[in-house]
Amino acid sequence: MAELTQRDVAYEANGTRMIGCLVASAAAPGGCVGAPLPGILLVHDAFGLGADTIALAARYAKLGYAVFAADVWGERTEAHDGADIGRLIGSMVGDRDDWMARLAAAHEAAAAQPEFDADRTVIVGACFGGSSALEYVRTGAPVVAAVSIHGGLDLVAHDWSAATGSATVLLCTGADDPMAAPEHWQPVKAGLTGAGLDWEFDLYSGTQHAFTNPKADALGMPGAASHPRNAARAWARTIDFLGEVTGAAAGIRTSAR
Amino acid sequence: MAELTQRDVAYEANGTRMIGCLVASAAAPGGCVGAPLPGILLVHDAFGLGADTIALAARYAKLGYAVFAADVWGERTEAHDGADIGRLIGSMVGDRDDWMARLAAAHEAAAAQPEFDADRTVIVGACFGGSSALEYVRTGAPVVAAVSIHGGLDLVAHDWSAATGSATVLLCTGADDPMAAPEHWQPVKAGLTGAGLDWEFDLYSGTQHAFTNPKADALGMPGAASHPRNAARAWARTIDFLGEVTGAAAGIRTSAR
Repeated sequence: MAELTQRDVAYEANGTRMIGCLVASAAAPGGCVGAPLPGILLVHDAFGLGADTIALAARYAKLGYAVFAADVWGERTEAHDGADIGRLIGSMVGDRDDWMARLAAAHEAAAAQPEFDADRTVIVGACFGGSSALEYVRTGAPVVAAVSIHGGLDLVAHDWSAATGSATVLLCTGADDPMAAPEHWQPVKAGLTGAGLDWEFDLYSGTQHAFTNPKADALGMPGAASHPRNAARAWARTIDFLGEVTGAAAGIRTSAR
Repeated sequence: MAELTQRDVAYEANGTRMIGCLVASAAAPGGCVGAPLPGILLVHDAFGLGADTIALAARYAKLGYAVFAADVWGERTEAHDGADIGRLIGSMVGDRDDWMARLAAAHEAAAAQPEFDADRTVIVGACFGGSSALEYVRTGAPVVAAVSIHGGLDLVAHDWSAATGSATVLLCTGADDPMAAPEHWQPVKAGLTGAGLDWEFDLYSGTQHAFTNPKADALGMPGAASHPRNAARAWARTIDFLGEVTGAAAGIRTSAR
């Protein structure tokens, strides 16, 4: 596997300075690859853009993607407790235009990187990042696809009339996730369907919020728990899906199908 | 890939003679494999055990499974029209004990084959075969897992109190399948959860009944249509799932995960 490039990229929206992180194969573009790589706009969970998210970006980058990890909170702010999380998420839900402007600015900054093929952008995120991915699609963003891993579906607004794109959407959700209960995901499904978007909704039994986060159990957050088996399932499904929607077969996966 | 063995196996239940078909690598057992292979009890759709189901059995067998294709209708009966289907399915729903006896007899016949590791049996089926897989689990059958691909969930009864096993269940279902509408799958989910069984439910938008059947469009059946993209998704998910639940990594799939 090729060596990875990793570099910080500053950008801004509405006066907020954000410091994203680009991670991609050091061979792209040029080298044996010779062309920009399909791009993942990776949105962090409520804890902000820290070491865990950058490690996740590297995991995707090793599979052949150019990954731009966004810094939605700005200045690499990290949440440390429930009060931080409540304040940060509340500020986005209270000003959805600012939330989307921050994502769009990250997308623009990503598109300016030579490794990142903006015409093949997939927005991917877990928890708050999943909510962000869905909101970005709901508001008509130009991505080919979106992946929400235990996204907080309770944060997604219900008016999908601006979702005029053709994004394909994958949701991997725990059946016992209080932030993605049936009353939350029914409007998401209805909105996606009403907008004519293609979606797949994978539901895992006995699975709570934040199930891909190995630290979820230590958080002591009601309704959140890690589930390594289903984290592996969601990862495998996401990798297959990314290959399908970006047409990025080379190096992504070999299969005996 | 090793050559395949294929042979008919006659068995019976309640006076009905059935002629199943075993398909497996010719190298198992003995040869380089040296042990029975994880077993798939494959249940046909409403059309009966014909060439299409045997071709599907070979597709699984090439991946390293011993596949026993059951002949639920008996004597290799094939349905030719809606009237046949209605009569055949009606006879099973009208006598669920006989339906389950036919599956149990197929399972027993499979277990008697040297290639087939009955301790690692997964029951797999599409349409009526998916209903059969779920019914077999619901009634407490000794399988490690079950896969229902656009199973007719409307055929599954609601009393899961006999499902005392530990089977893991995968359902891949079209969101526009009239035989697996929300009013049909909610009781299945509730039953599985109530019985303490592990399940994954994958729902595909814009997808009707029989979506893995390339001939579905020609049937002119309301609510049924092929969907090659989602057939490929369901196949990929099923293969991953089979590998996970049977521990059958060797030869099943290579992965860049």
